[in-house]
Amino acid sequence: MKVSIIGATGYAGAELLRLLLRHPEVRVAHITSESHAGQSISYVYPHFERIMNQPLESLDNIEAIGEDSDFLFIGLPAGYAMTIGLELEKLPVRIIDLGADYRFHDTAVYEKWYKIEHAHKDAKCVYGLAELYRDAIKDAKIIGNAGCYTTASILALAPLVKYGLIDTDSIVIDAKSGVSGAGRSAKLPNHFPELYDNFKAYGVANHRHTPEIEQALSDISGKPITLQFTPHLVPMSRGILSTCYAKLKDGETAERVDGAFQAMYKDEFFIRLRGRNAYPETKYVRGSNYCDLGWHIDERTNRVIVLSAIDNLVKGAAGQAIQNFNIACGFDEKLGIDMIPMYP
Amino acid sequence: MKVSIIGATGYAGAELLRLLLRHPEVRVAHITSESHAGQSISYVYPHFERIMNQPLESLDNIEAIGEDSDFLFIGLPAGYAMTIGLELEKLPVRIIDLGADYRFHDTAVYEKWYKIEHAHKDAKCVYGLAELYRDAIKDAKIIGNAGCYTTASILALAPLVKYGLIDTDSIVIDAKSGVSGAGRSAKLPNHFPELYDNFKAYGVANHRHTPEIEQALSDISGKPITLQFTPHLVPMSRGILSTCYAKLKDGETAERVDGAFQAMYKDEFFIRLRGRNAYPETKYVRGSNYCDLGWHIDERTNRVIVLSAIDNLVKGAAGQAIQNFNIACGFDEKLGIDMIPMYP
Amino acid sequence: MKVSIIGATGYAGAELLRLLLRHPEVRVAHITSESHAGQSISYVYPHFERIMNQPLESLDNIEAIGEDSDFLFIGLPAGYAMTIGLELEKLPVRIIDLGADYRFHDTAVYEKWYKIEHAHKDAKCVYGLAELYRDAIKDAKIIGNAGCYTTASILALAPLVKYGLIDTDSIVIDAKSGVSGAGRSAKLPNHFPELYDNFKAYGVANHRHTPEIEQALSDISGKPITLQFTPHLVPMSRGILSTCYAKLKDGETAERVDGAFQAMYKDEFFIRLRGRNAYPETKYVRGSNYCDLGWHIDERTNRVIVLSAIDNLVKGAAGQAIQNFNIACGFDEKLGIDMIPMYP
Amino acid sequence: MKVSIIGATGYAGAELLRLLLRHPEVRVAHITSESHAGQSISYVYPHFERIMNQPLESLDNIEAIGEDSDFLFIGLPAGYAMTIGLELEKLPVRIIDLGADYRFHDTAVYEKWYKIEHAHKDAKCVYGLAELYRDAIKDAKIIGNAGCYTTASILALAPLVKYGLIDTDSIVIDAKSGVSGAGRSAKLPNHFPELYDNFKAYGVANHRHTPEIEQALSDISGKPITLQFTPHLVPMSRGILSTCYAKLKDGETAERVDGAFQAMYKDEFFIRLRGRNAYPETKYVRGSNYCDLGWHIDERTNRVIVLSAIDNLVKGAAGQAIQNFNIACGFDEKLGIDMIPMYP
Repeated sequence: MKVSIIGATGYAGAELLRLLLRHPEVRVAHITSESHAGQSISYVYPHFERIMNQPLESLDNIEAIGEDSDFLFIGLPAGYAMTIGLELEKLPVRIIDLGADYRFHDTAVYEKWYKIEHAHKDAKCVYGLAELYRDAIKDAKIIGNAGCYTTASILALAPLVKYGLIDTDSIVIDAKSGVSGAGRSAKLPNHFPELYDNFKAYGVANHRHTPEIEQALSDISGKPITLQFTPHLVPMSRGILSTCYAKLKDGETAERVDGAFQAMYKDEFFIRLRGRNAYPETKYVRGSNYCDLGWHIDERTNRVIVLSAIDNLVKGAAGQAIQNFNIACGFDEKLGIDMIPMYP
Repeated sequence: MKVSIIGATGYAGAELLRLLLRHPEVRVAHITSESHAGQSISYVYPHFERIMNQPLESLDNIEAIGEDSDFLFIGLPAGYAMTIGLELEKLPVRIIDLGADYRFHDTAVYEKWYKIEHAHKDAKCVYGLAELYRDAIKDAKIIGNAGCYTTASILALAPLVKYGLIDTDSIVIDAKSGVSGAGRSAKLPNHFPELYDNFKAYGVANHRHTPEIEQALSDISGKPITLQFTPHLVPMSRGILSTCYAKLKDGETAERVDGAFQAMYKDEFFIRLRGRNAYPETKYVRGSNYCDLGWHIDERTNRVIVLSAIDNLVKGAAGQAIQNFNIACGFDEKLGIDMIPMYP
Repeated sequence: MKVSIIGATGYAGAELLRLLLRHPEVRVAHITSESHAGQSISYVYPHFERIMNQPLESLDNIEAIGEDSDFLFIGLPAGYAMTIGLELEKLPVRIIDLGADYRFHDTAVYEKWYKIEHAHKDAKCVYGLAELYRDAIKDAKIIGNAGCYTTASILALAPLVKYGLIDTDSIVIDAKSGVSGAGRSAKLPNHFPELYDNFKAYGVANHRHTPEIEQALSDISGKPITLQFTPHLVPMSRGILSTCYAKLKDGETAERVDGAFQAMYKDEFFIRLRGRNAYPETKYVRGSNYCDLGWHIDERTNRVIVLSAIDNLVKGAAGQAIQNFNIACGFDEKLGIDMIPMYP
Repeated sequence: MKVSIIGATGYAGAELLRLLLRHPEVRVAHITSESHAGQSISYVYPHFERIMNQPLESLDNIEAIGEDSDFLFIGLPAGYAMTIGLELEKLPVRIIDLGADYRFHDTAVYEKWYKIEHAHKDAKCVYGLAELYRDAIKDAKIIGNAGCYTTASILALAPLVKYGLIDTDSIVIDAKSGVSGAGRSAKLPNHFPELYDNFKAYGVANHRHTPEIEQALSDISGKPITLQFTPHLVPMSRGILSTCYAKLKDGETAERVDGAFQAMYKDEFFIRLRGRNAYPETKYVRGSNYCDLGWHIDERTNRVIVLSAIDNLVKGAAGQAIQNFNIACGFDEKLGIDMIPMYP
């Protein structure tokens, strides 16, 4: 398949390139970057030296790129992908957007949280979280790849919601991410000495991943769910740990919780059930497409606590996009993304 | 005042020594260490080179040390301080224990969570969290210095509990600490390459600081509180951020929350109210005795989220111990501990 | 090929396992660990969960393991590999030792620097630095895989020595390594809070990699070279940067230096000549088998400064071992180890 | 004394403020910042919350500030301080410049390395490295505070040069710094994910601290010295370790080296001679004004290797500036800067 990466010089775009270059069924046709158009990707990212020296193109060529590609992977700031999607609607090229433009069933939710008018409201798009929306992904023209925090959080809570084990009004998600999740733009808050040996929360009560988690869990539940989501910044490069809390419904037991995770995920290649009382760590999944899950029951408080670890740039972005691509192409779902985590 | 540090080679003990050596009303008489008895403190900790070269003594001399000191600061593993407290009961020396032995009103709670029989059940001890127990600390013979996670968490929630603004059954505390909180013993989980670029939870549903937080908040509330507490390890040296969640009671408002924090803390030197919608960061308090507080109201979920940042070795251990010492001596409470945070 | 890893639970052994499990011509037959015999590798290293759950065997079975393997990769402390090599001398199994036992032409040098009597002095072994000893490696029975600091340093200086451009008496190598190079044993100096936000030198004038670098450069030069080597510990997990200094001989020029690097390495897949005035960084090679080289000429001092970056666990250990294995098997040299560096 | 900080929002300026606010003989009169004029310092640096809320002024007021101050500490980019120095020449105010404008005896050297025409060539300025230029500092009108790398490197080599023990042509200084040394401007190379878990060199053969080190060592030697200096960036916040190499002259011995360090520094409060074969670490001096020195003799190569550790923002900038200020005021040299290092 001929694929192109639109926005190849963000961290997610560069990770996509790294993985796609080793995918056995892929040829990377075009890579673009507005800020670095004309330069070689290996000039922008010297780790590609001698591996990929192709020049970066500009979005000006988007139509020609669309015609010359079977798939476009888009890694651009909110608002750009929907314009591209609209412009290329008539072409056969399929789109996997790593941003948020195509993630929401209801574009009004997008408009409310992103403060951008949606330009492509009638797009035929599906939500790209493979474990939950696999069938819809198969034939999708446009896939709105799930976000990083959302992937970790939705996968952690989905079994509990699906089997009706928790009081959904009590859900609190306390998530922590490495700094690559904040992108590659140099800004004071992400300047090295500011973050090193430091820890902080941000986006309390207003982070944009909140409605995305709510949408997926509401889909599963069948009724609207409102929940608490708080992100934090960890002084490390990669990785997300999501600590998810919920009250168990009366009469629910640890065994029923165990059963829900098994029933939902036992055949999922990329979800590793580390089991009850286990402690996933972000380093155990670094560089891989795995999501590791452990869960705990607190009998004193009657809460279940689920711990979920992913690599934000792989299962939370580039790896998941390729997983969706594999499904959309009818390939083995793990083709090119069954990397073993890199430790230590 | 002549003071001695029993257990001076743990991180908290060494930090105590650092601060006490610059305290204008203190002379450090004795320092002890079982593992390093006979060695100079500057051999064990070269940052003390030329500043403090005094040899470390053994606990074998505890009675003589007790007789030669006005105050003992104890930084030993659980179970040791109570033996010393009992042994020196008849001496005039006063004790500030940085461990847990003297933190609980009810020694049965201690015995349940620490799995150690309490040897000094009838001790006259007070809980050493200055902002909440100041009066009792003044004349205390034995002070059970508050723990690190507990200090950050109690100070965050106390105003909300005191003024009855929250549903106490809904409290979730998600806390994150630098690795110095785990002590100086070299163990595989804290080996550098295992933790670096890594993040994890531990002690879910069973961490020993849980009953300590519950005790203080129950004291304020007047009725027993059970809550959720989860600690995490951040790949950094120092600092704790505690993210505290609770449902607001019906009819409570952001202004009432603001008012509770102001009413309770506006005259507290070591509590810096950063205000509503503020984001305390651990680096803003590093090396200081401050506790920075910021809070947020989520109108969608009707929750209040309080963020609390301290330096675990200062306000969470050594600084707090000296604050208690100052109160117990009738000194200005901030004497010797008004360090400005070290940034970056 | 059936391969076994003797000492699979050190960092180098675990990295070997990670790479060998994805090598298309390899089946991992046995893995051993004295400290964890009987346990599953995924219990010791949870990043292998669901990927490799094979139990670890003990060295007690070494003869049976040797009979059941085409190749043994050995990752044990100094002194163990030579006993195994001796014991299995009659078997057809070939050995790649990641330790130092088989690295020296003259076992007296080994005995002097390692303070261990050599048990296998007449072994037919070759030095396993592929770019320099490729022909000898092809048919070797025993390969003494080059060390981490040594690989980075030798590759940096070899062209200058080979073409006689520098005064070899003036060589100073100032090298810096991530902490994984110090192994997985938990010891106080490598305890997280001791190293974090810290930097130090160690092994000045006596590090064991010194004679290894001298041996290889002397081989190239044809006459004995004595040089200065100083290692440092960087608060990071992986990566080595070696900064190498030497005085240019009178009349030598920048162009002659450029030419030497080109002549020696232009066809080497794993050596990326970043060029004159370039700055290799350890992150540009992380997780890959590349060695990146940049060089600078200081006209004021008439020195050449070469910067050399590798991943200490890949090109400095496991990746290099597989490169040697590929050569010894007649496979394409980059089979299974052409990973793209993981950034950021 | 009334002092003002010109350029208070760089890292060195903020550290100066932190230290000056606790100096018993100082009142901070004015603080300036061009980028943040009108804002409170605690808005720009929340660690000053409730400690210092004074608004930042603009340089437009420099004359009034100069009139209202006994001392100005200047922390501005190269080229600004000399304009201020010239403008305020007639006022009694004395100046301590943390930048490079007043560091060079010969402004031609400055112009060559900084590519800026010097505006104040006839200034009566002295080089502000207290241990070496103490007498001149006492009455200086303008003090050019020594740089960070230079302080660590000059103090390491001065005794060897003074007592003629080394071949000065063989000097190689390989220095490593935490990232705060690069300032607070957010730029891609210092963006957190780019530097974290990464190590690199920069400024090879052309770093501006080179001529400054050469000037000081030439002053001591009495004849011009040209040397090699290479800086590196360590993924940490604070600290410099300088590894300095030189060939011993024939006949020189370890004892003579020991003697040189003792003779030169035994009465220096801020220089801690850790001794022969010692390993200073940056964390042992963090937050303090100490310079720790250890040295090693390599009998195989006949080189002496000196290791020198400082906190780049204290002894390498703000602490040294106050040390100079104390000397210039006739105060005890350690007044307000005898902080004990903060560990871990």
